[in-house]
Amino acid sequence: MGNTCSNSCSVGVECERKGEQIASARIFNPMTSITREALWRNDLEQALANFLRRHPQGSSDGLYDPIHYLLGLGGKRIRPVLALAACEAEGGDAGLAMPAALAVEMFHNFTLMHDDIMDEAPLRRGRPTVHKKWNEHAAILSGDALYTLALTALEQVPTAALPDVLRMFNVTAREVCEGQQSDMAFERRENVTLEAYVEMIRLKTSVLLAASAYMGARCAGASEERAQLWYRYGENVGLAFQLQDDYLDAFGESSATGKQVGGDILSDKKTLLWLAAWAHPSSREVLMSHVGSHPATGSVMAEAKIQAVRSAMVQAGADAEARRRMAEHVALALEALAQLELPENHGAWFGDLAAHVTSRTH
Amino acid sequence: MGNTCSNSCSVGVECERKGEQIASARIFNPMTSITREALWRNDLEQALANFLRRHPQGSSDGLYDPIHYLLGLGGKRIRPVLALAACEAEGGDAGLAMPAALAVEMFHNFTLMHDDIMDEAPLRRGRPTVHKKWNEHAAILSGDALYTLALTALEQVPTAALPDVLRMFNVTAREVCEGQQSDMAFERRENVTLEAYVEMIRLKTSVLLAASAYMGARCAGASEERAQLWYRYGENVGLAFQLQDDYLDAFGESSATGKQVGGDILSDKKTLLWLAAWAHPSSREVLMSHVGSHPATGSVMAEAKIQAVRSAMVQAGADAEARRRMAEHVALALEALAQLELPENHGAWFGDLAAHVTSRTH
Repeated sequence: MGNTCSNSCSVGVECERKGEQIASARIFNPMTSITREALWRNDLEQALANFLRRHPQGSSDGLYDPIHYLLGLGGKRIRPVLALAACEAEGGDAGLAMPAALAVEMFHNFTLMHDDIMDEAPLRRGRPTVHKKWNEHAAILSGDALYTLALTALEQVPTAALPDVLRMFNVTAREVCEGQQSDMAFERRENVTLEAYVEMIRLKTSVLLAASAYMGARCAGASEERAQLWYRYGENVGLAFQLQDDYLDAFGESSATGKQVGGDILSDKKTLLWLAAWAHPSSREVLMSHVGSHPATGSVMAEAKIQAVRSAMVQAGADAEARRRMAEHVALALEALAQLELPENHGAWFGDLAAHVTSRTH
Repeated sequence: MGNTCSNSCSVGVECERKGEQIASARIFNPMTSITREALWRNDLEQALANFLRRHPQGSSDGLYDPIHYLLGLGGKRIRPVLALAACEAEGGDAGLAMPAALAVEMFHNFTLMHDDIMDEAPLRRGRPTVHKKWNEHAAILSGDALYTLALTALEQVPTAALPDVLRMFNVTAREVCEGQQSDMAFERRENVTLEAYVEMIRLKTSVLLAASAYMGARCAGASEERAQLWYRYGENVGLAFQLQDDYLDAFGESSATGKQVGGDILSDKKTLLWLAAWAHPSSREVLMSHVGSHPATGSVMAEAKIQAVRSAMVQAGADAEARRRMAEHVALALEALAQLELPENHGAWFGDLAAHVTSRTH
């Protein structure tokens, strides 16, 4: 949680949640935004557990077992927390947005279950992926069931907000599919523009954050106009977040990120950094000489590939380009936030979240 | 269409739709139920085409191509037609139920796209399945997108009916997943009771027909009580339909069904017939001597297996048991229909549909 984060960040959404830290956060008084975040998280976990209790493990021939497993692995829960936070900032009780919060978290996990099949990923949050622990058919069908559960949660959205919330949820779900499709299509193409890449991560990652903020606000009774500002805030936070994720994968420190730095480089992943380097003839030559080589992680060859590609990225100004774009999106997020004119005790948390996204080292 | 059906059935939902037949049906006057069915079908195809036009082939890196392909293969469209028919029978314009009709048809096709992966089916409606024509990843992701489109269609359901329609849609979607899970689980078990089998086909097949009728009625403004009668009607028609499907696969005539009779027997599929035979010691012995043998379709060995298993089924009274249960479900469907007290010009179509389900030979 933020209050014990080693990086002194005031927003804890990037750090791993721990029960005892939430408990200690509860004794804060007066209610700071950190205390509130701890309460949201606590309520969220309880609501999620209550919801899943209706579909227990072992029932329906094990259909729900992979769902309990994946959601039990934790994760940042940034989307549902954002929904609850936006709802409260708009003057609603956070509980009004709980159905929407559960829906976005379950939808997100549904996409992970299916994406992990398509990406042939063996691990998720350090544990075997569903299709590895069970099999692909189980991951397909339990994923479908999880999407259904997300929509079931959505039924409890306040009636007045339901039509617009459902519309936003559906548009977003479609866009997330489009983003994943583009991501897979880009793997087979070299001629991907930076703009096409940013659009892909916008669809694959940002729109669900944006929709979370939008839905939270609408659940509090916010106007469509204000909810659209929330959407812009979430969308730009999401874009900055994903760009920073790519940046840390190439230029972060393993000790801080907790994962192997250079993973994207070793797998020739076409991130913005890679594409910006590819756009420069001399850097492209370096990339071309390494593309397709897959040295074992941790080997001397792997280190050499990571160093060479990193240098090519720096030489092409790709890292600067990434940081420039990130700053741009943070500025756009803060601009939307300013237009919302929230009272200071509500606005600070969102400002910190936007700033934290690009200052984080893990 | 029914009006040209070689079996003289007055309800055409089981027969293949053909454009020119619909055109000729349009000149019927006065409006018989067959004429109305032709209009519903025509409007449905137009509405579906209009809807899909928003997500054209080739867009979003081809995400929607498999969707156009699968929906373009046709199919009986029994679910959406039932939704439109129930809406009109409840005094609403059929157009009020069109969003729900599109939603159930797209949802049904989404389940086909994913089930065909899990069942490793090479063909669907005589053409390559999506995962064969493209690949499994495309079938997973385009399937997800199709589910999303089904929900998008649902947004246009009349506002007053939306919360209950959405609730019904979600419960049904979950049950369909549970039915598919049980179907796969049963493949690995011999100790499946007849009741468990019927519950599996209820979930996998019937509830979506039931929900179609329910939703159509609600879109016309029908009360929850009346809509529940529609649900019971659709549920029992669906059960009778699936039992007849299993029956025809074992005891039908290839010339009438248009497919290889005995397919279920050759693949040791645990239908009600198979399970009822398994329950009798002497018939079980016959089944046991053939389980696991997979003679080539059309071979002498295959014919011998089909004949032997068929005889074992008859000896165990499995065919009579299937027909008894079918009749029971038709009676329950007709009972629900009677309770609805529809005017004759509306009720006849539904009565014919229920009767046709078990009298059909294809």
